Amino acid sequence: MNWITLSSTEKSQYFIDEYLSIRARSTALCSNLAIEDFVVQPMADVSPPKWHLAHTTWFFEEVILAKYVSDYSRFHQQYRYLFNSYYKSAGRHWKQSQRGELSRPTVDDVFRYRRHVDNLMVNYLSTTIVDDEIFSLLEVGLHHEQQHQELLLMDIKFILGGNPIDSIYSKKQLNASSLVNPSWQSFSEGIYEVGALESTFAYDNEKPRHNHYVYSFAMSDCTVTNGDYLAFIEDGAYDHAAWWLSMGWDWVCDNQVAHPLYWRKIDNKWYEFTLHGLNLIDINAPVTHISYFEADAYANWKGARLPTEQEMEVYLTSGDDRFFDKPRCYRPENEGADFFHPTKSDAQFGQVWCWSKSHYSGYPRYRPYQGMLTEYNGKFMCSQFVLRGGCVATPTSHYRHSYRNFYAPHQRWMFSGIRLAKDI
Amino acid sequence: MNWITLSSTEKSQYFIDEYLSIRARSTALCSNLAIEDFVVQPMADVSPPKWHLAHTTWFFEEVILAKYVSDYSRFHQQYRYLFNSYYKSAGRHWKQSQRGELSRPTVDDVFRYRRHVDNLMVNYLSTTIVDDEIFSLLEVGLHHEQQHQELLLMDIKFILGGNPIDSIYSKKQLNASSLVNPSWQSFSEGIYEVGALESTFAYDNEKPRHNHYVYSFAMSDCTVTNGDYLAFIEDGAYDHAAWWLSMGWDWVCDNQVAHPLYWRKIDNKWYEFTLHGLNLIDINAPVTHISYFEADAYANWKGARLPTEQEMEVYLTSGDDRFFDKPRCYRPENEGADFFHPTKSDAQFGQVWCWSKSHYSGYPRYRPYQGMLTEYNGKFMCSQFVLRGGCVATPTSHYRHSYRNFYAPHQRWMFSGIRLAKDI
Amino acid sequence: MNWITLSSTEKSQYFIDEYLSIRARSTALCSNLAIEDFVVQPMADVSPPKWHLAHTTWFFEEVILAKYVSDYSRFHQQYRYLFNSYYKSAGRHWKQSQRGELSRPTVDDVFRYRRHVDNLMVNYLSTTIVDDEIFSLLEVGLHHEQQHQELLLMDIKFILGGNPIDSIYSKKQLNASSLVNPSWQSFSEGIYEVGALESTFAYDNEKPRHNHYVYSFAMSDCTVTNGDYLAFIEDGAYDHAAWWLSMGWDWVCDNQVAHPLYWRKIDNKWYEFTLHGLNLIDINAPVTHISYFEADAYANWKGARLPTEQEMEVYLTSGDDRFFDKPRCYRPENEGADFFHPTKSDAQFGQVWCWSKSHYSGYPRYRPYQGMLTEYNGKFMCSQFVLRGGCVATPTSHYRHSYRNFYAPHQRWMFSGIRLAKDI
Amino acid sequence: MNWITLSSTEKSQYFIDEYLSIRARSTALCSNLAIEDFVVQPMADVSPPKWHLAHTTWFFEEVILAKYVSDYSRFHQQYRYLFNSYYKSAGRHWKQSQRGELSRPTVDDVFRYRRHVDNLMVNYLSTTIVDDEIFSLLEVGLHHEQQHQELLLMDIKFILGGNPIDSIYSKKQLNASSLVNPSWQSFSEGIYEVGALESTFAYDNEKPRHNHYVYSFAMSDCTVTNGDYLAFIEDGAYDHAAWWLSMGWDWVCDNQVAHPLYWRKIDNKWYEFTLHGLNLIDINAPVTHISYFEADAYANWKGARLPTEQEMEVYLTSGDDRFFDKPRCYRPENEGADFFHPTKSDAQFGQVWCWSKSHYSGYPRYRPYQGMLTEYNGKFMCSQFVLRGGCVATPTSHYRHSYRNFYAPHQRWMFSGIRLAKDI
Repeated sequence: MNWITLSSTEKSQYFIDEYLSIRARSTALCSNLAIEDFVVQPMADVSPPKWHLAHTTWFFEEVILAKYVSDYSRFHQQYRYLFNSYYKSAGRHWKQSQRGELSRPTVDDVFRYRRHVDNLMVNYLSTTIVDDEIFSLLEVGLHHEQQHQELLLMDIKFILGGNPIDSIYSKKQLNASSLVNPSWQSFSEGIYEVGALESTFAYDNEKPRHNHYVYSFAMSDCTVTNGDYLAFIEDGAYDHAAWWLSMGWDWVCDNQVAHPLYWRKIDNKWYEFTLHGLNLIDINAPVTHISYFEADAYANWKGARLPTEQEMEVYLTSGDDRFFDKPRCYRPENEGADFFHPTKSDAQFGQVWCWSKSHYSGYPRYRPYQGMLTEYNGKFMCSQFVLRGGCVATPTSHYRHSYRNFYAPHQRWMFSGIRLAKDI
Repeated sequence: MNWITLSSTEKSQYFIDEYLSIRARSTALCSNLAIEDFVVQPMADVSPPKWHLAHTTWFFEEVILAKYVSDYSRFHQQYRYLFNSYYKSAGRHWKQSQRGELSRPTVDDVFRYRRHVDNLMVNYLSTTIVDDEIFSLLEVGLHHEQQHQELLLMDIKFILGGNPIDSIYSKKQLNASSLVNPSWQSFSEGIYEVGALESTFAYDNEKPRHNHYVYSFAMSDCTVTNGDYLAFIEDGAYDHAAWWLSMGWDWVCDNQVAHPLYWRKIDNKWYEFTLHGLNLIDINAPVTHISYFEADAYANWKGARLPTEQEMEVYLTSGDDRFFDKPRCYRPENEGADFFHPTKSDAQFGQVWCWSKSHYSGYPRYRPYQGMLTEYNGKFMCSQFVLRGGCVATPTSHYRHSYRNFYAPHQRWMFSGIRLAKDI
Repeated sequence: MNWITLSSTEKSQYFIDEYLSIRARSTALCSNLAIEDFVVQPMADVSPPKWHLAHTTWFFEEVILAKYVSDYSRFHQQYRYLFNSYYKSAGRHWKQSQRGELSRPTVDDVFRYRRHVDNLMVNYLSTTIVDDEIFSLLEVGLHHEQQHQELLLMDIKFILGGNPIDSIYSKKQLNASSLVNPSWQSFSEGIYEVGALESTFAYDNEKPRHNHYVYSFAMSDCTVTNGDYLAFIEDGAYDHAAWWLSMGWDWVCDNQVAHPLYWRKIDNKWYEFTLHGLNLIDINAPVTHISYFEADAYANWKGARLPTEQEMEVYLTSGDDRFFDKPRCYRPENEGADFFHPTKSDAQFGQVWCWSKSHYSGYPRYRPYQGMLTEYNGKFMCSQFVLRGGCVATPTSHYRHSYRNFYAPHQRWMFSGIRLAKDI
Repeated sequence: MNWITLSSTEKSQYFIDEYLSIRARSTALCSNLAIEDFVVQPMADVSPPKWHLAHTTWFFEEVILAKYVSDYSRFHQQYRYLFNSYYKSAGRHWKQSQRGELSRPTVDDVFRYRRHVDNLMVNYLSTTIVDDEIFSLLEVGLHHEQQHQELLLMDIKFILGGNPIDSIYSKKQLNASSLVNPSWQSFSEGIYEVGALESTFAYDNEKPRHNHYVYSFAMSDCTVTNGDYLAFIEDGAYDHAAWWLSMGWDWVCDNQVAHPLYWRKIDNKWYEFTLHGLNLIDINAPVTHISYFEADAYANWKGARLPTEQEMEVYLTSGDDRFFDKPRCYRPENEGADFFHPTKSDAQFGQVWCWSKSHYSGYPRYRPYQGMLTEYNGKFMCSQFVLRGGCVATPTSHYRHSYRNFYAPHQRWMFSGIRLAKDI
């Protein structure tokens, strides 16, 4: 939504509406949780759900209220410290790997904190003439909250999935996927423009839009399925160094990795833990919760390769004409709502984040945000890989084809998957 | 209580009463907790309170119900695995350091589990003619539950004490301690009998009662106070290797230890976190939450030494005549109830566990329990030190002069303190 | 040297000469070492010098002799295992971090191994009609040996430099550097060709030559000096998170980094350990032994940035015309020989490897070597950064402008330095 | 040797002779080593042989020369730092686990250091009237050197034994052991005196001689053999938690321990690496290189127990009458010389150090050495176990029945073994 051309009153109303609906979705995502589920942190990368709910609130408090409301007094002095994730310019922060050690503030306290800040935010937006620059910060804050909605789903899945006591997040039953026949979409050599336009909302790391020289390539119009990946496993995936990066092979050996994160072999059958419970793996559904190491090894085994992030963007933005007769994005809401597991391997995007072979770096002439938000993206441009295309946990209004998600090559608790490319 | 001479009916009634009252105290100790407090595990040694409540229940289920009730069907198959602490003969167990990763079962589930097992236990005791051997297992189970009541208080303290948000477990206000003047109690050389009599209840590790040759020694009739320890700190305690064991000095350096566990320096004043909140340190109260390394270093600095565990037992059992005019044990209940912080350095016992210089080993002719309980004590007889005398968190009916508590030399989240001895 | 057009006899002679002279230089580099210096491994990245001498020999034994000499019998069965670096297809290998645990084979044994293989190699080349394909493998083997000559110098420096007993590798005395005034060299936007031509020798990772879209930029014609870097330190380099990558700041804190690897502060003066002994830092010489984290932080502090590897290659290959009146590469041999420390910050290359901001990835349409050498480069394309330009330890005939050196962002025992770029 | 009654001149001569002969043996033990063998440290507990040779020299330099020779100038300022093992009162010391990172000083340098200090020591003893107190320090220094002679053999064995290239320290061939039939020696209950007499040389930790109450027990007159231990392995030793201490079982699992340290299974046969090369295990020879965990588990499996250190001393000092007709101690020199592997399981002592079940603590009224040597023994009295009886690597004149060797329960690179006891 390009709000810049709205009147001042319309802008306020637009942002109040957006703010309330996005904030409401965060708590709605947690409505099925037991209080205990809000608290634990079974690995360092995961945050307790109550921490997400508090941190996104802290973001509005620090970036908007504390800066622009005169004489603002914080809800709780220690929250500034406890719910700062990693912004060094915002002062000390509690250590990320120790978020699960804190029983207090309670979940109730955190909800009280949310309501408090929400009231103040709405009041601020209703009663103040707000600069566009502040609206821009607010817009980042809303996207930030949406990012954490995806993280909430990832973290809830990890919390429930690692517990020997089975539990189900969503009672909706998954439908079986249908068999699809992938074909290769070809793209010709030349200079392509990639990146977000200056005039649209996008994070700093998606800009500036720029030229990139791309060689001719083909991209699969399907993501790799559980069945495809199972064939790789049965051919000795995790037993042969030859397909793996050096660091990847070390990761396999050190962690005795033998299957995707949520797969479990019970009585000689493969099951997969999903937010809809433990199911037999669906052979036609996209494989997901795959590390970069696994994605790269799979591509090597298959005699193909992972695409670059530019190739992915070219592919994603090419859809309008060419995929006319099938929906490009099978988002959960297409099927109703509350589906949090990928089932359509022929979707162009919106099912699983696809690993690119591109390390995460600044685009040519990249300019980070200024102020506190300068730490938002730029400082992580080291030893991570870009993923593209969105997933079932990504809020639809948060998704963009220019979106650059990024993770370390061993991480796999996000809904990551594989789309193959090849040189032509 | 020596129940062995009671009639069969009296025995049943005695154990039903004991069972219900001891079980009730465990839940009562948790009555002030938020649900979130039941879940976290801020260090590997600490267990989430809900784990304690479930594990003590598991103990009765495995040791009594599953063994002696025909066709017994467990409350939940996974609980057998999740709430086994370390009994290898009872099957696999969840890893100790990962107890805090589990949000499920919920606190409600655990309370349901307790009520379920309690009903079955009372039913079993009411309706069955029970062998003395089984009563003996039950008696161990009740003492086991009481041990965990002390652990609950230790763990709750650690959970609340490490959180930057201040909280108070008990609203009772602590009284200031009074100044005491320690004197030395002398004991002459000779053979002493130590250990529990065969005929009384005691753990296997307290038996058999046996002769031990003791050289003449003197024992302080006061434990070391915060004021005493502060003088040590101010004399450079943590800066001089000379007073420390080699492993102790490494521990100081590696962990940058500079004060007892719960002390905090704020605006140049020393405070101490207690279960009654954060207070200025009480100069006359016993120093507590001290590692063996610190206790040993303090004794060296003072030109004294720690007592052996046999000397401690000789001292503790000597009290009847000589401390006639003052209570030997200032237990919390002496002051009413619900006091969980040591305040009387002149108490002979019952305030802080005092480190002995004795490693924890089996007594001459020690025979471990048979069956599953063989793992109760004997397998830990390695690289730990014995503490004697009980503390404010020890249930009074659980305490015995022959009691051998034991911890690794670096641990200090228990209510440990220092009583000095010297050669004479 | 393009040997492809030579006659069969000339090829053999050419390679025998190259082989003997390059092999001789490896041992010559070690001629000043004590036997003890050949053995130790003071950090996992460093290899004992005797290991380098044996491993490069193993390379010829495995890649040429064992493959192409009929009935070849290895010098020692265990050497196959001990001196395999990381080639999984060549069987098991001794763990890299434990190379310094092996006293045997002795240095004498290793020299014996070298002479044995050298004799067989020369004999093979003298008496056999060798395919060009095998000559190509041999050519890689010679470049491989030269790579290890640079590693030898790096590792010897680390071995001697971390020892509290001062020692000097080269008795040649370093001359003081002269002050230089950096200026910016500008390059205009457009498509540039980068990478090695198919017809010249280069590693697989430098090919294929390909188009790359480059935005206009300027490159400093001097590398950052010790004086420049000192100003950064004095402005609080290691105390301010704002200039650092997130992983970089963690690295600084975890390792308490406060200066370049070989700098030492003695009596309030900065010294630098060099292969020519411990000297006061030379304010005008290039700063070296700098991690990517430090290089990136310096550039941020300076308001500039690190160049991409393509910008570096454009810059390096631009020299012929534009730097007419000054030597582009002050290689040690320019000054005689045996100078192993950078002194000329105005050299275009050949003094310090300059960090690019490019992660190390395969070029478009990259094809790895086949066979055992497939593991030579490709499997390391993960979480490393490219450095360009060569250093004083690089053999001159080994250097190419297309050369892609790569290291992890925290590593700094190589002769790494900083050349700044900026957008224009 | 009680030198105290000698004349001043005799004392000097006695100590010069002792000094020269003991010092000479240290270097003689290293005469078969390659220079490379002097340098490496394949695990933190092991020290490079050159370090031992230098450290024992440092001991005389610091304890005698630097203290008692006026205007003494040290051989090399850095040696004071590099060759201090752990004496905090003697200043900083190089980190133990990093001794193998140092190529300098060279082996030649270290031998020069030894000769330098030896000359000064002999000169000092020849030309000065020396107090008995200093002779006593010297006596400790000589025993210290002998302790390191045993460590040298242990460390050389570990250095050679972990190398995939077979090597042999001693060319002497081991004779096969003969079958022995162990019997139990009984001892009656009562007070026993243990510890060294004040008037004889012994370390501070062996004193004072004191009363200890011992219950009746029996001791095996043979140590456990390889054959005995093999039966334990074949009965599932390393697969059943029930026999193990809790820490022991963790050690087995974490390190995947499956046999004694130097055993290797080749083509389904058990071999043992010895200082005399790799041999098939000798079924009748004492099992050695056994951790406390293994010794304790073996005893549990066998239905016996390990003896206390007091029981061991009672047993060891009981031999004079009862073992009249066979040598009590089959020391290497009994067979000639240069035998460094235990072969006689019926020797009362001198073959393998036998683990006692006693943690290492100070005796009643223990007084540590004063001065720098106060750190010699007392600061290690924590979490270690006492071993008694000496081994084939112990210099004969260094051995005493009151000797208290001590190691952590997981260590096993010393010549440790098992002698069983039982209650009677």
